[in-house]
Amino acid sequence: MTTADATPSLPATADELALVDGWWRAANYLTVGQIYLMENALLTRPIAADDIKPRLLGHWGTSPALSFVYAHLNRIIRRDDRDLLYVCGPGHGGPAMVANTWLEGTYSELFPEVSADAVGMQRLFKQFSFPGGIPSHAAPETPGSINEGGELGYSLSHAYGAVLDDPDLVAVCVIGDGEAETGPLATSWHANKLLDARHDGAVLPILNLNGYKIANPTVLARIPEGELLELLRGYGYEPIVVAGGFDGEDPMHVHERMAAGLDRAFARIDELQREARTGDGVERPRWPMIVLRTPKGWTGPRVVDGERIEGTWRAHQVPLSGVRENDEHRTQLDEWMRSYRPAELFDGDGRTMSWLDGLRPRGEKRMSAIPASNGGLVRRDLSLTDYRAHAVETSDDRRTQAEATRVLGRWLAEIVRDNPSTFRLFGPDETVSNRLDPVFDVTDRVWAADIWPEDEHIAPSGRVMEVLSEHLLQGLMEGYLLTGRHGLLNTYEAFVHIVDSMFNQHAKWLESADGIDWRAPISSFTYLLSSHVWRQDHNGFSHQDPGFLDVVVNKQAHLVRIYLAPDANTLLAVADHAFRTTDTVNVIVAGKQESPAWLSLPEAEEHVRRGVGIWEWAGTEGTPVEGVDPDVVLACAGDVPTLETIAAADLLRRSLPSLRTRVVNVVDLMRLQDVREHSHGLTSDDFDALFTTSAPVVFDFHGYPSLVHQLTYRRTNHDNLHVRGFQERGTTTTPFDMAMLNDIDRYRLVLDVLHRVPGLADEHPELVADVESRREIARQYAYTHGEDHPDVTGWQFGD
Amino acid sequence: MTTADATPSLPATADELALVDGWWRAANYLTVGQIYLMENALLTRPIAADDIKPRLLGHWGTSPALSFVYAHLNRIIRRDDRDLLYVCGPGHGGPAMVANTWLEGTYSELFPEVSADAVGMQRLFKQFSFPGGIPSHAAPETPGSINEGGELGYSLSHAYGAVLDDPDLVAVCVIGDGEAETGPLATSWHANKLLDARHDGAVLPILNLNGYKIANPTVLARIPEGELLELLRGYGYEPIVVAGGFDGEDPMHVHERMAAGLDRAFARIDELQREARTGDGVERPRWPMIVLRTPKGWTGPRVVDGERIEGTWRAHQVPLSGVRENDEHRTQLDEWMRSYRPAELFDGDGRTMSWLDGLRPRGEKRMSAIPASNGGLVRRDLSLTDYRAHAVETSDDRRTQAEATRVLGRWLAEIVRDNPSTFRLFGPDETVSNRLDPVFDVTDRVWAADIWPEDEHIAPSGRVMEVLSEHLLQGLMEGYLLTGRHGLLNTYEAFVHIVDSMFNQHAKWLESADGIDWRAPISSFTYLLSSHVWRQDHNGFSHQDPGFLDVVVNKQAHLVRIYLAPDANTLLAVADHAFRTTDTVNVIVAGKQESPAWLSLPEAEEHVRRGVGIWEWAGTEGTPVEGVDPDVVLACAGDVPTLETIAAADLLRRSLPSLRTRVVNVVDLMRLQDVREHSHGLTSDDFDALFTTSAPVVFDFHGYPSLVHQLTYRRTNHDNLHVRGFQERGTTTTPFDMAMLNDIDRYRLVLDVLHRVPGLADEHPELVADVESRREIARQYAYTHGEDHPDVTGWQFGD
Repeated sequence: MTTADATPSLPATADELALVDGWWRAANYLTVGQIYLMENALLTRPIAADDIKPRLLGHWGTSPALSFVYAHLNRIIRRDDRDLLYVCGPGHGGPAMVANTWLEGTYSELFPEVSADAVGMQRLFKQFSFPGGIPSHAAPETPGSINEGGELGYSLSHAYGAVLDDPDLVAVCVIGDGEAETGPLATSWHANKLLDARHDGAVLPILNLNGYKIANPTVLARIPEGELLELLRGYGYEPIVVAGGFDGEDPMHVHERMAAGLDRAFARIDELQREARTGDGVERPRWPMIVLRTPKGWTGPRVVDGERIEGTWRAHQVPLSGVRENDEHRTQLDEWMRSYRPAELFDGDGRTMSWLDGLRPRGEKRMSAIPASNGGLVRRDLSLTDYRAHAVETSDDRRTQAEATRVLGRWLAEIVRDNPSTFRLFGPDETVSNRLDPVFDVTDRVWAADIWPEDEHIAPSGRVMEVLSEHLLQGLMEGYLLTGRHGLLNTYEAFVHIVDSMFNQHAKWLESADGIDWRAPISSFTYLLSSHVWRQDHNGFSHQDPGFLDVVVNKQAHLVRIYLAPDANTLLAVADHAFRTTDTVNVIVAGKQESPAWLSLPEAEEHVRRGVGIWEWAGTEGTPVEGVDPDVVLACAGDVPTLETIAAADLLRRSLPSLRTRVVNVVDLMRLQDVREHSHGLTSDDFDALFTTSAPVVFDFHGYPSLVHQLTYRRTNHDNLHVRGFQERGTTTTPFDMAMLNDIDRYRLVLDVLHRVPGLADEHPELVADVESRREIARQYAYTHGEDHPDVTGWQFGD
Repeated sequence: MTTADATPSLPATADELALVDGWWRAANYLTVGQIYLMENALLTRPIAADDIKPRLLGHWGTSPALSFVYAHLNRIIRRDDRDLLYVCGPGHGGPAMVANTWLEGTYSELFPEVSADAVGMQRLFKQFSFPGGIPSHAAPETPGSINEGGELGYSLSHAYGAVLDDPDLVAVCVIGDGEAETGPLATSWHANKLLDARHDGAVLPILNLNGYKIANPTVLARIPEGELLELLRGYGYEPIVVAGGFDGEDPMHVHERMAAGLDRAFARIDELQREARTGDGVERPRWPMIVLRTPKGWTGPRVVDGERIEGTWRAHQVPLSGVRENDEHRTQLDEWMRSYRPAELFDGDGRTMSWLDGLRPRGEKRMSAIPASNGGLVRRDLSLTDYRAHAVETSDDRRTQAEATRVLGRWLAEIVRDNPSTFRLFGPDETVSNRLDPVFDVTDRVWAADIWPEDEHIAPSGRVMEVLSEHLLQGLMEGYLLTGRHGLLNTYEAFVHIVDSMFNQHAKWLESADGIDWRAPISSFTYLLSSHVWRQDHNGFSHQDPGFLDVVVNKQAHLVRIYLAPDANTLLAVADHAFRTTDTVNVIVAGKQESPAWLSLPEAEEHVRRGVGIWEWAGTEGTPVEGVDPDVVLACAGDVPTLETIAAADLLRRSLPSLRTRVVNVVDLMRLQDVREHSHGLTSDDFDALFTTSAPVVFDFHGYPSLVHQLTYRRTNHDNLHVRGFQERGTTTTPFDMAMLNDIDRYRLVLDVLHRVPGLADEHPELVADVESRREIARQYAYTHGEDHPDVTGWQFGD
């Protein structure tokens, strides 16, 4: 990038603006064509009924403003040789984004059949929102896009995530006034407090106010301008207002104002960055932004059937309907498209006229071809030290204790250290609470706002991003990954539900991107869920919910992985695997409390490699012999259920030494599925070898029991599978009382075994009574003393 | 309420402030006691190790400010006889809220064992965060609370929802600076544009800035005050700043400033309401709000072990740890509690001194006893006209067409009309899109911001609340229901995931409230999900997700109901049922497109009463005979799957007249569960009577297939159950192509039957080939013509 001068450049010349206007007209023409036409793309004859698509789908309302911005940004790129990323919040304006990428040539390079000529233009038109064609939104299929803009709310956080650690990049983020009403967007403005002007790029938000969402006014367009500017200054920006195009105003006037506004904005960005980077900057920069007021459906039909269209909510989707049947509407469409003067823009072969070349950036400077928008091209593997150096030294008696997440934290510190510009840790103020604080030996929390003397580990250059908005964090990390970097989001298990919908949308993005050959793989999105359902005993019911796993398994099997780490070494091995994956979503659930480190490092690695396995040392069956089933299988997944299961097996060993028990632990949950459903799934034979075909299975599960049934209902032994898990019973209480409330505790498991192994309960009524009594004593003890019974807290393996 | 004068009242007297301070000290004493003590509540001797709870749980940091506000509001209530509702955003400060309600006497009235004396105080202390006791947050168990404040983000929307249609109520909403970072809260400030000062009450937000969330600074506390005030003015408020208590400042000074700030705020509220209500008000009011800057953990230990505590993040939870073991800490605790001068506050019997009576509001004026906070006490049943008047007249040939949601909309219009201050319709700009627009015959969208000439059905007094934030809408409706009113939230099915977590928290609230005898039942929260997964063909993949149902079924069975309305009359009957329920969450999925009205009104009513039933007219089995099974059961749930199933059955009838088919439709999804799991569930016998014990069942389902398996895996015939549903394949395409992409289409169903009824495919290879060919033709047709094949679109029942 050539560093621009602090003084704004000279005003755009009339020639430059004529070029911008030509580009804009071309883009608008191509946008309308995509919505309406399947033939006669160049309007070589009046539009006929058969030229019109049978189903008219698309969103015109937002499109002209999107192309207006696009054309103007091209002027900036050409002049300054800048790296700009276009983040399109009003993603419904897909045809506009596609139109511009076709004008840039990128579209035809990536999709050669949609060539840069008349044949290509006709295909471009027909494929839009057409079966077998392309979706109606700016989607993974759209070159240059990292933001679908279907659900709305995430554009600004994506933009901020994209520019982190990329000092030369400016993400220009167009935000619609509908999107601006969403909560995630409303808080994303504050991401400027998490930006380090020295090492990060800049975001230029363009708030496009056209007054309406679908059929309704919008808040930000309907408050006095003074109030709006106060709001935006309060968010920490210096707003520049550009307004025009209303009541038929000549667009050339608006071009002038927009060019001047952008010149001011980019000059200010350069100035702020120079101040920060030369050491003059101490104050948090007040970044510029643009408020762009334009009519909804600008340049479209002004009046149809006597009703105003342009500038109203009626322009939202397809302003002229029934165009096949309605001759008058068809004539209006014809006039509308010709109003862009296509003969000035395209030659007889449908190629853009050469005079438009002057606005087309070259190669990777094109916003449709900038590598940041196809992050896999930029991505380099993480530099990973050997996690084995952090493994917990276990003892043969399996009584070593460790805090799993703290152990991981020590390795994470090295990852942060060794990947100083490509890895970040994200979390809503829970890095310490989740015991990942070893990272603060090597870095800080990023913070560009005021710092007080008592603050610890806070600095503008920190690598840990903490803000109490899971939405903002998820959006930032998505933006960071989509532009080719790596990250980890750690959060309380219950509150990851806050971003259920963002997870869904990201998974959909990955699913669609998977089918697009020019999209290179990006790093997987890895969640670390700690402070989980079983150890939120101090915060109570509102903090107790393991249901995110159920949301995750609904996505296509090749996209999702779920790991329930039973201990510290397993967590290390799982994390190492997760950091090496691409194009998936990994969910890791792990405890933060001191608890048994069951497995030595080699055992843990082998366990993770297999995903599920028999823990022979925990059961009484000895080495499994083919054809000889145990009397019962005690299965478990999750750290607390694993502890309870092993304690239950221990109690059974001591009480009923002749009972042949087998303990199976599941770390990779998708192993439970059939291999035909999920690549990690087990074959039927392998599953049967572990879970038998006829022995009772008591499965202690971290989450809702139904999930295990959902994954296993086709398995041979399913009818003998009895699952314990969270039953939506919670409060502030002791950890073991939480287990008892939901029947996942060791005593309940022993009782389950006694009642499910035929004859056992009848043969040993005294044992049933004894275990029931111990359970009741444990409950009473907790209710009287406020802590768990020493029999429980003092229990160690092999007592 | 006595109407206060426009001029602020006289300043609070020194006596008044001494009273406020006394109350505050009492509340703080009781707060610390709850966190630490299980004995020696009155400190009749120095605190001993055994007096201390074994597990120290609770959040001190936010508590003193919550009590500070509480005490000051009591002065206002006593002086002006106002109705105030206290919405506590920092709900972690549960012990503070409980302390105040105990001081008010309400707690002992509702929980007589926690009496208003020394014995009660000891129980009050011990029960807090203790097994079998009360949770650590302001929860349903807390008198006066309508907001848990566990997850954070919803307080302000709850407050706005609470004051709608309650002109005399002021909801005072304390917002923590942590919560203020969440997206839902960030957009909730704009709810002032949805408030009608004439008919609604007022919200007084108090933004309490103490600088920290858990371990981190907060954005709003760390920007310059000028920037903060611009932000708040930009949100449309007139902020009043009250700051103090730092560095040991005498609290009496802060009391003076707070009293003055509240006096100004309430005077301004009165003034704005009078202007609006006497017709002088034309401008949108700029409501007052308070920025309250106080130290975190105010009045707690200033320094512990040489580290600053008060005013820092270290005060967040329990400022003194290890108090049982650490004598020095225990001495500090003793000094801390005695610093509140308990002897001035409580007599030897633990009763509050009579001088504090002067601040205690009476009866229902107490914020802990105001009926709005226990909405069931206020709630009156909806006035419901007979929905039957709106039923679709069906014909015997079952070919009548209707738009289900539009039919419902006509009845909704009457409900809006007849319940002018107790029913509202909520939706993110989709009331028209979801075809509920008949309501605009009787009402408008509420809008207090600017209105433009082209706007339609917009007015300050509208009963339809539309804003593009599902979070804000859900919060508003929760606040409205929790204070005793009724509502319906309609939204796109895919985007209801945005409020997964809010649904979770509301369900948890209902679950907890269910066990509290003094909480009266409130109206159920009813979602109407339209524009569902199968008819988002124009918006594509981002808009296609039926997974909310999976989130819902995880909650306790007695709380949730799911209805998949197959047609218009069924939707009417379902809605009528839903509007009469309390304390549940009802999810209704219904189509908006023109589609068959299969059932006559009496049939629909009977179908809804049964929840699931055989549609004899659609199959070929005739009247079921006990002991004689059909050859195959075609089951369905959801409008599009029902259409495809009936079309498939029709095709089978014509192709294989001797095949005995049975069509079963499920409208109440929880009928699939066992009655032992869900009160709506079927007994095993009833289920077997419908689905047989051995015939193949091809189940066409609206959502993810796994949900049906999850609900039915224990059913006798489960192994023969083959479920089709959404397979996470979507894009912009035709409706029937969407069905084919996910294998829920009629042809696929027929092929399923042919392959699953033993021998059928072998006997009829030509039929298999024919159906496969028709399917391929339909696909090719869509891909060529851009619309569905006439064989599909032209199909009618009984052709």
